[in-house]
Amino acid sequence: MLHFKLGARVDGETILKGLQFIFQEQGMTESVHTWQDHGYLSTYINKNGSFANLRIYPHGFVLLDLQSYDGNSQGQEVNSLLNKVEERMKDSQDSTGRVKQLPPILRGGAIDRYWPTAHGRLVEYDIDEVVYDEDSPYQNTKILHSKQFVYILILSGDVNLAESDLAYTQAITGSGKEDYSGKDVLILGGGDGAYYIDQMVIDEYKKYVRKTCGDVLNNLKGDCYQVLIEDCIPVLKRYAKEGREFDYVINDLTAVPISTSPEEDSTWEFLRLILDLSMKVLKQDGKYFTQGNCLGHLYCPVEFSKEIIYVPSYLELWVFYTVWKKAKP
Amino acid sequence: MLHFKLGARVDGETILKGLQFIFQEQGMTESVHTWQDHGYLSTYINKNGSFANLRIYPHGFVLLDLQSYDGNSQGQEVNSLLNKVEERMKDSQDSTGRVKQLPPILRGGAIDRYWPTAHGRLVEYDIDEVVYDEDSPYQNTKILHSKQFVYILILSGDVNLAESDLAYTQAITGSGKEDYSGKDVLILGGGDGAYYIDQMVIDEYKKYVRKTCGDVLNNLKGDCYQVLIEDCIPVLKRYAKEGREFDYVINDLTAVPISTSPEEDSTWEFLRLILDLSMKVLKQDGKYFTQGNCLGHLYCPVEFSKEIIYVPSYLELWVFYTVWKKAKP
Repeated sequence: MLHFKLGARVDGETILKGLQFIFQEQGMTESVHTWQDHGYLSTYINKNGSFANLRIYPHGFVLLDLQSYDGNSQGQEVNSLLNKVEERMKDSQDSTGRVKQLPPILRGGAIDRYWPTAHGRLVEYDIDEVVYDEDSPYQNTKILHSKQFVYILILSGDVNLAESDLAYTQAITGSGKEDYSGKDVLILGGGDGAYYIDQMVIDEYKKYVRKTCGDVLNNLKGDCYQVLIEDCIPVLKRYAKEGREFDYVINDLTAVPISTSPEEDSTWEFLRLILDLSMKVLKQDGKYFTQGNCLGHLYCPVEFSKEIIYVPSYLELWVFYTVWKKAKP
Repeated sequence: MLHFKLGARVDGETILKGLQFIFQEQGMTESVHTWQDHGYLSTYINKNGSFANLRIYPHGFVLLDLQSYDGNSQGQEVNSLLNKVEERMKDSQDSTGRVKQLPPILRGGAIDRYWPTAHGRLVEYDIDEVVYDEDSPYQNTKILHSKQFVYILILSGDVNLAESDLAYTQAITGSGKEDYSGKDVLILGGGDGAYYIDQMVIDEYKKYVRKTCGDVLNNLKGDCYQVLIEDCIPVLKRYAKEGREFDYVINDLTAVPISTSPEEDSTWEFLRLILDLSMKVLKQDGKYFTQGNCLGHLYCPVEFSKEIIYVPSYLELWVFYTVWKKAKP
């Protein structure tokens, strides 16, 4: 992909004519579409299956996209074409200096390197191996290997957590400032995003992303912990009814909740419900940790602090909150 | 951009026919190119200047790319088209479950969000403002604003350093483990990549990226420091000739050197020259800090250690080296 901005005195037809020969040299056949008010689209087709689109907009903005199938020989052909057009535009004084070529986008191969961030930004990861890729009745589970982030867990297309992301676990457990010894801790979720952590995920996670979970997932029950694989809302409601209280509630459920039952009529309502139930099972001097969330309309007044950290494999800043019940006056 | 993989029993022509109506509904005109051995390319052109390419490869790989000029009304049209095709493919059982839509690539606007990493990976930054954008006789200097990285300095298209990148400065100065008081320190470059740090860069840098430089750049000379804006090679040669020695030499010149004079006939030779000259001006018990480099063929034997850190605005791991002269036996 290449794009550039034409100088004020240059018209689209001149540019089209000036670049044609580069494609014709490759034996590509040209077909030009002209709009009355929207400029030109020239499609160049090669016998080997590759093709190029040269789109010239009336205000002098030009985009060139090339597509080929084979990463080897045709990839070179694509590069050489893009470079020739880029050189031509830089030399010719027709462009106003804004010539930009983007790295090629590789699609359809065994390794998919494009995993957009939570905010939908396009990023290419340095993935070099697909370690695991299976569907369960609930979702697709992938473990990918990257030089930078080591093993990355991807659930239904969302980057979940990687071996590089100790910073995430630290932030959501209070950044090393809490003393958990002898305390009752309730963890909702576990870096799982909006997906269902089934046995398949646990099996692969403990095998590959071990640095983040140690040997905790070897058994779902230990001397001082128990892992429940079920919906946390009925569990929270039962605890609240029984009057069971915790020193810490860590909500690591999801950044973008997906409503699954009629009870939660909006994602915000879901978040509020979890937070409200969490407050009900939190001791008066307890602490609640989570990522970004809404704090109004709870059964009791609360106070909070926040911390912003960079999670390596997310390639993004994330906000983590600490919430506590307001001291009774 | 959308792509998917067809089921084994589906042929390209059937897919083409099954998707046609989605484009025809929009009033787009179709022109189909058929290769004997390379599948189909169908181009759909809209009266409003937008267009789509539907490329079907013989082994069942299908790519759909849409392009439109206006980010508002036409952006919606593009999204709606992509979503319709995606739904159709998910519903139809024709695809083998691998349907993937990438975020749109925005080109030609005032704000360019695509700044590939040093290793050429495509990444979209969360740039929300172009603060400064000027050409000097040496290069283009840009200061861009990002919510995550605050002010980012970009020299001729390369991400240089951002306010978020204290980790870089810490790593290249010994990760806080050195006591610099009363020491003689020689810094080559200064986070400048392969570019020339002229007065324009310094003026804008000290104005915006202040968190990384404090008030050091307000004056080029202070009680205990001096900033020289010149080629470091003659300076190093003069120091070596004079026998001047330093406790620390910090080489922050460049990750990818550009050869500028006949003396350096290769980039590796340039790196070796800098390192060799640095060793000549380094005290016997001094330390040399740099990023990845070559350590052979120097005038004296050396030892080294390395550290790998994540530089936030680079979205990449970088390697930093500490080098010292081998103790005399």
